[in-house]
Amino acid sequence: MTQPSQKALVPFVSVDHMMQLIHHIGIEEMLRGLAERIETDFKRWPLFDKTPRVASHSDVGVIELMPTSDGDVYGFKYVNGHPGNTKGGLQTVTAFGLLSDVATGYPVLFSEMTILTALRTAATSAFVARMLAPEGSRVMAMIGNGAQSEFQSLAMKAIVGIEEVRLYDIDPAATAKCKANLEGSGLRVVACDTAEEAILGAQIITTCTADKQYATILTDNMVGSGVHINAIGGDCPGKTELAPAILHRSEIFVEYPEQTRIEGEIQQLDADHPVTELWQVATGEAAGRRDAKQITLFDSVGFAIEDFSALVYVRDAIKGTDFFQPLDMLADPDDPRDLFGMVQRAG
Amino acid sequence: MTQPSQKALVPFVSVDHMMQLIHHIGIEEMLRGLAERIETDFKRWPLFDKTPRVASHSDVGVIELMPTSDGDVYGFKYVNGHPGNTKGGLQTVTAFGLLSDVATGYPVLFSEMTILTALRTAATSAFVARMLAPEGSRVMAMIGNGAQSEFQSLAMKAIVGIEEVRLYDIDPAATAKCKANLEGSGLRVVACDTAEEAILGAQIITTCTADKQYATILTDNMVGSGVHINAIGGDCPGKTELAPAILHRSEIFVEYPEQTRIEGEIQQLDADHPVTELWQVATGEAAGRRDAKQITLFDSVGFAIEDFSALVYVRDAIKGTDFFQPLDMLADPDDPRDLFGMVQRAG
Repeated sequence: MTQPSQKALVPFVSVDHMMQLIHHIGIEEMLRGLAERIETDFKRWPLFDKTPRVASHSDVGVIELMPTSDGDVYGFKYVNGHPGNTKGGLQTVTAFGLLSDVATGYPVLFSEMTILTALRTAATSAFVARMLAPEGSRVMAMIGNGAQSEFQSLAMKAIVGIEEVRLYDIDPAATAKCKANLEGSGLRVVACDTAEEAILGAQIITTCTADKQYATILTDNMVGSGVHINAIGGDCPGKTELAPAILHRSEIFVEYPEQTRIEGEIQQLDADHPVTELWQVATGEAAGRRDAKQITLFDSVGFAIEDFSALVYVRDAIKGTDFFQPLDMLADPDDPRDLFGMVQRAG
Repeated sequence: MTQPSQKALVPFVSVDHMMQLIHHIGIEEMLRGLAERIETDFKRWPLFDKTPRVASHSDVGVIELMPTSDGDVYGFKYVNGHPGNTKGGLQTVTAFGLLSDVATGYPVLFSEMTILTALRTAATSAFVARMLAPEGSRVMAMIGNGAQSEFQSLAMKAIVGIEEVRLYDIDPAATAKCKANLEGSGLRVVACDTAEEAILGAQIITTCTADKQYATILTDNMVGSGVHINAIGGDCPGKTELAPAILHRSEIFVEYPEQTRIEGEIQQLDADHPVTELWQVATGEAAGRRDAKQITLFDSVGFAIEDFSALVYVRDAIKGTDFFQPLDMLADPDDPRDLFGMVQRAG
């Protein structure tokens, strides 16, 4: 075997290494670190190259590439969404991502992102809730107790100070799973029989369900004043969770209007319905919550910059650790014009 | 360490494994196999999802994602182009690619593509030359003796029956390198002092130079009738190699007009200048070369379907071999909704 040079080796963070990294750092500390990195990047939002994601749709799902760049570092994520996958014992969403150096085009990190996406989605939700939720929010309703639910709960604890989560899912087994996983987390966990019960006393309502359809997880009369809604599940055309009347009563905050109007809850509204961009709230250019009675709504769809932030966090976090393996991904002949000679000599 | 299940493991073909695979199969046999696979896919061209590449430009280069799908298999390539890289001892172009299953979104192959791109570009050139070059072509001029030159020469030998290559480069060291690498290949290799000398007696003229500028590698009076021009180097906005007068004397064949009009030699022509799509020549729907005096020109820019074909070839070729390693890229909890539990149990 030919020994590749250092330049040809790309650090790869496998699923196992990602899990080890989480335990090494501690999940709440990692969620806080991710939220900080995401906040930093939201504050310099205009710097980023914002290409809409490139989607390849089929009857059963979608495969997307989400690229972005801050001028120094380029990143992209590959992610699929296949709601029918769970029937065959597969994940609905799997993902991996890459960072590279804009100056040379050479990759500098390749990483699993199925787990990392769950972390960054939760960290983004919590960073936004810290800006928008009512003062002293301590109770969250968690509607939809699937793969995201524990990450959302812990991020809201670590970043917002939530002390109680109230769980509801149409499938009681999902609620039982989420409750069991959160035992020992320090959160008070209450399993509820209805969405209405879950919402009782909650200052933050998180919706995160998976069916690809126009669903109504929250109806208008379920939502009182003075709450923050963290709507995660409405994230592609044809998939929404909230009754339109709730949207009309809310001040709506989005990552990137061009994308959210296609993929988010606001696909149900007119194309010129007013929304506030979160990066402007982060920099102080726009107001966040204006009073205690207001309903604030984060219409979350997930944007490439959040993945970029997460990959940059991981790139820095693995330095000096063993939580990666060098991958021989790049051909690196001694003379760059002599690719053929390198191949020939390997014989 | 948690042992990932089979579904979570993606076969990865490293640079070293790719080189071993080439030697295992034999480079000419592999070029023939790739050309066959490319021909098969050109013949079913209308089936493919043809998204233009997604480019991220900077002052010093470009990073591109090139996705496509045939409805069953999805593929994409990451590729950079940084002409200044060679000064720092790096490759101008590096690449990797991925195939996945449209039905589930799960990746099924991850592969280096720096070497594979060189092979597929050469195989495509030779497949096209076999359709368009004059009967009995035996001599090729190779203008530009960089990283592509040996692959082009061997593909034209293996697929078209070229017996002699005539080399020219502004840098004699590049020519010397190419000549040395082709010793023992069975080709007659003639190093030339000028482009004019290289073209003498050639039925096929391949241009493959690297500077990102409007260059004139071939002037009008250098090109006689009855040749096939294989123009590889003009492949991005602002980068061309041929004098416009040559284009006006040629019948022009392209991969995908929408992309070639932006990136190819024909960016120098009006947007409605007639061109012929190669897939139509492959299926017999359009004529190729009509007479011995005609100048045919393949304005090659490289299209995602060729990368797809190359990845499918590699996916099949590694079956039953050791030329790959399983990569733990996909989180695969026993219960798909219990991603958190998987992370927790890894602690």
